[in-house]
Amino acid sequence: MNYFRKMKKELFEELKTSLLELSHIGSAMALLHWDQEVYMPKNGAEFRAKTLANLAGIMHEKFVSKEFEKLLKQISKLEKNNELNKNETIIFSEIWRQFSREKKLPLEFVRDLTETCSNAQSVWAEARKKSDFKIFLPFLEKIVELKRKEAELVGFEDSPYDALLDEYEPQMTSQEVSIIFYELKEFLVDFLKKIKKSKIKINPTILNGKFETEKQKKFNEFVIGKMGFDFGCGRLDTSTHPFSTSFNPEDTRITTSYDEKNLFYSLSSAIHETGHALYEQGLLSENFGTPLGESISHGIHESQSRIWEKIVGQNINFWKYFYPKLKKEFSQPFEKISLEEFYKNINYVKPSLIRTESDEVTYNLHIILRFEIEKDLIEGTIEAKDLPKIWNSKMKEYLGVNVPNDASGILQDVHWSGGSIGYFPTYALGNLYSAQIFDAAKKDILNLEKEFALGNFEHFREWLRNKIHIHGKNFSANGLIKEITGEELNSKYFIDYITDKYKNIYEL
Amino acid sequence: MNYFRKMKKELFEELKTSLLELSHIGSAMALLHWDQEVYMPKNGAEFRAKTLANLAGIMHEKFVSKEFEKLLKQISKLEKNNELNKNETIIFSEIWRQFSREKKLPLEFVRDLTETCSNAQSVWAEARKKSDFKIFLPFLEKIVELKRKEAELVGFEDSPYDALLDEYEPQMTSQEVSIIFYELKEFLVDFLKKIKKSKIKINPTILNGKFETEKQKKFNEFVIGKMGFDFGCGRLDTSTHPFSTSFNPEDTRITTSYDEKNLFYSLSSAIHETGHALYEQGLLSENFGTPLGESISHGIHESQSRIWEKIVGQNINFWKYFYPKLKKEFSQPFEKISLEEFYKNINYVKPSLIRTESDEVTYNLHIILRFEIEKDLIEGTIEAKDLPKIWNSKMKEYLGVNVPNDASGILQDVHWSGGSIGYFPTYALGNLYSAQIFDAAKKDILNLEKEFALGNFEHFREWLRNKIHIHGKNFSANGLIKEITGEELNSKYFIDYITDKYKNIYEL
Repeated sequence: MNYFRKMKKELFEELKTSLLELSHIGSAMALLHWDQEVYMPKNGAEFRAKTLANLAGIMHEKFVSKEFEKLLKQISKLEKNNELNKNETIIFSEIWRQFSREKKLPLEFVRDLTETCSNAQSVWAEARKKSDFKIFLPFLEKIVELKRKEAELVGFEDSPYDALLDEYEPQMTSQEVSIIFYELKEFLVDFLKKIKKSKIKINPTILNGKFETEKQKKFNEFVIGKMGFDFGCGRLDTSTHPFSTSFNPEDTRITTSYDEKNLFYSLSSAIHETGHALYEQGLLSENFGTPLGESISHGIHESQSRIWEKIVGQNINFWKYFYPKLKKEFSQPFEKISLEEFYKNINYVKPSLIRTESDEVTYNLHIILRFEIEKDLIEGTIEAKDLPKIWNSKMKEYLGVNVPNDASGILQDVHWSGGSIGYFPTYALGNLYSAQIFDAAKKDILNLEKEFALGNFEHFREWLRNKIHIHGKNFSANGLIKEITGEELNSKYFIDYITDKYKNIYEL
Repeated sequence: MNYFRKMKKELFEELKTSLLELSHIGSAMALLHWDQEVYMPKNGAEFRAKTLANLAGIMHEKFVSKEFEKLLKQISKLEKNNELNKNETIIFSEIWRQFSREKKLPLEFVRDLTETCSNAQSVWAEARKKSDFKIFLPFLEKIVELKRKEAELVGFEDSPYDALLDEYEPQMTSQEVSIIFYELKEFLVDFLKKIKKSKIKINPTILNGKFETEKQKKFNEFVIGKMGFDFGCGRLDTSTHPFSTSFNPEDTRITTSYDEKNLFYSLSSAIHETGHALYEQGLLSENFGTPLGESISHGIHESQSRIWEKIVGQNINFWKYFYPKLKKEFSQPFEKISLEEFYKNINYVKPSLIRTESDEVTYNLHIILRFEIEKDLIEGTIEAKDLPKIWNSKMKEYLGVNVPNDASGILQDVHWSGGSIGYFPTYALGNLYSAQIFDAAKKDILNLEKEFALGNFEHFREWLRNKIHIHGKNFSANGLIKEITGEELNSKYFIDYITDKYKNIYEL
C-alpha cells in the first residue's frame, strides 16, 4: 500500500503503536533507575549505567528514525488540513514538539553534553566534598557553553533561557517567570523581616526524640494510605534521597529516608512523594503511551506534591486528625506538646543555607536566586567564575544569611552538574500553582478543611484527580490553571496563603 | 566503505556491539522478571507483561534484522576460510546456532506458540486446582502439535525430540540421554527397594520446630556468605517460588521462600540458588555480551546448584561446621539431636508424589519418567490423552507410588503449559554432571571434605570457578566434562556416590 494513501485512522494506530513501544522502554528504564536507588548491590553500578545508556540509545534511535519521521510528516499534513480531532491534535502537537527538539540536536552534540555531564557529576561531588568551587568551575563553564549552544540549536524568540525552560515547563517564558518571581521576591523579603522581628520564638528541637525506623514506616504507611496512595498500584521503599517514579498508572513507587531523631524527615518526604504518586496513579491507564496519559509539566507535578506536603500536610486541620494518632504511637516527646504548639513548631520559619531543608516561606527565595543566576549565565550577562560571589551576595540580600563556604552555598545542588539548567524555577512555580489550585478547591468543596480534621481526604483527592490528573496533557499548564481557577498563574494566591497562615503563627 | 572489504577486526567489533546491545536488553528483562516475583505491586502485572513482551519484540527484531544477518554472513565467510581464531570461532558458532534456529521459525509460528502457551498457563493452573486433566488436555495437544512442528522447522537427524532438547542442552541427543537414563533407572529402582527394606527407620519430623523468618534469613545469609556468595554483587530476597537470576556478573540475585515450621525449606533453596549464583558471579565481566560470558547449558548450570545443595550441603562434613552454629541459633529442637542423627534425617529417602519435594535418590526417577513421556509424545508413539494412565503406571513401576489424582500426578509441573518440552532431562543431567565433577574435585583437592568440616569452602569454590565458571561457553557440556574428568558423561559417578552415601545411612 502506498504510504501516502493510508487513512488517518491507520496512521494514528501506527503512531500509537510506536509511542507505546517507546513508553514501555521508558518503563523499563524507570525500573532500572528505581532499583539502582533502592535495591541494587553496590558493585552493580557500572553495568547498570551501561544498561540504561543502551536503552536510552534504542529509544533515541527509534524516536528519530526515518520511519517515525515519515509517519509524523504524514500526520502533519492532516493537521495542516484541519483533519485531526481535538485529542489527535494534542497527541500530535506534543510529539511533534519533542521530535523537533530532538532532531535539532545533532548526535555529536548530544554525546558531548552527555559525556560532559557524566564527568561533571563526579567532579561536582568531589568539589562539594572539598568545598572548593574552583575544582568544578571548568566543568560548569563547559556545561554553560553547551547549554547556550543547545538554546541556539533549539531556537528561541526573546531569551536563550526560554529554550531551556521549555524542556521542563513547556510554553512558559522567562519573561513571565521574571515578572511573577519579582513580585514574589518583593513580598517574601519584606515578610521575612517581619517574622524575624516577631516576639514569637519557636524552638522546633522539642519535636526531636527517638523514633524507630520500623515504627515510622508504619505511621507513614498509615498517613499516605489515608491520603489515598494505592498500595495495590505502588510501593513505599527507602533510599538515600526520597523520590517518586512511575512505570505506568498501575505501578507507581515512592521512597523516603529515615532519621531516627526526627520523625518529620521521613514523613514529610513520604507525603510529598505521595502527592507526586497520586498524580501518576490518577492518569488513565488507557491513555498510557500518549501525551494524554502523561503529566503536564514539572511545575504542575510539583504543585501536586507541595499541595499535599505543605498546604495540606502542615495544615492545622490535617493534624487535628493525625496528631492524636501520632501521640498514641510516639508518646515521647508528643505527650506533653499541645496540638497548637506542635502546629507552630512544624511551621517554624528560619532563613537557612540549604534549599532542601528550608521552610515554606524562605524556600522560594532559594529558587528565585537560582533562577536569576541561571538566566544571567545563559544570557551571558554574568560568567561562571563569578558565581560564588554573586550567590553569597544574593543570599545575604534575600535571606540575610552569610554563606560560610562553597559546599553550603553555590555547590549544594546537583542540578547544574547534570546539565539541568531551567529546572529550578519549576519548584517555585509548583508552589504558586499549588496555592492557586487549593484556593479553587476550597471554593468548590464546602468545608474542605473541616473534612481534613475528620480524616476525610477523599473529596479533595478526587477533586484533584478529576480536575487535573485524568486529563493528562489535555491542557497546557496555564490552560489548566485558567480552567480551574479562571485566572492566569499569578503570585497573589500564594502570597495570601503565606500571609494568612504566618500572620497567625507569628502574631504579626 | 564497502561492507565486504571490512577487516575481520571491524566485523568482530560490530558483532560485539550488537551482542552487547542485545545483552543489555536481556538484563533489563531479567530485572523486570525479578521485580515481578519479588517486589511488584499486585496490580502491576498486566502492564509488566506488556513491557516484557515489548522488549522481547525489540530483541527479536534486532536479532533477525537484515543488518545483523548481513554481518553474520560476512563473518561466516571468514570462518569458512579458517580466518577466525579460537575465541572468535566459539562466539560466531554459538550466535550462528541461535540465529539459524530463530530464523527457521516463522513469525506466525512464534506468535501462535507464544499465544497458545500464554493461554495454556492459566488453563493449566485451573486444571491443577480442580485436579482435572481433561480441562488441560486440548491445550496440551495443541502445544505438542506445535512443538512437533517446531522440531520439523528446526530440523533433526534421528528424533524430533533432539531438536527440542538442543535448546536447553546443546549438542546432547535423546539417544545419549536414553542410554544414560536407562542405566540410572535400573540402578535406582533396585536401590530404592533395598532402602525400603532397611531396618533403619527415619522420622524427619523431629527436625520441625518454630523458626522465625528473620532468624532463618540471617542464618541463610551466614551460610551462603561462607559458601562465597558475593553480597556486593548480589542479593537474597523472598519470593513464592525460589529462583536465581543474573543481570550481569556484578548483579546476580537469588530468592528463597520461608516455612516457619521447617527451616530446611528456605535453607536448601538458598544453598541451591547460591550454587547457580556462584556460576553467574564467576563468569568474567569482560566477556559480558558474548557466549564466552555465558553459562554452558541448563544441565551444567543445574550441576552447580545441585553440587552445593546436595553433595556439599547434605554432606556430614558441611554440617560438622554448621551444625554447632545452627544449634546455637535454634536450640529447639536441635539441642537434643546429635549430628549423626541430624545428618540421617536431612538425608531421609522416601518415594513420594511430588518431584520438587523428593529426595536425592528418588528425584531422578521423577525426571526419567518425564523424559520418557516427552520423547514418546514428540515422536508420536503415545498421545496426550493417554498421559494420566501412562504417568500413573510409571509412578507405580519406578517409585512404587499410587497417584491419587491428576493434581499430584500429571498436572504437578508448570513446564509443559509454558511450552518447555525438552527441559526436564537437564535436571537429571545436572545431578549426573555434579557427581562426576565432585569426584574430580576430590582428586584435585587434598582433604576436600575435611576442609568443609573446618568451614573452608574457598578451595572448592575457586576450583569450580577456575575449572568451569570463568570459561563461559569455551567448552560444550561434554567437552567440559571430558576436560575436567577425562571421561564422557556417564552415570557411574552418581551411582557410586548414591551407593556409598546411602549404604552408610541405611546400613545396607
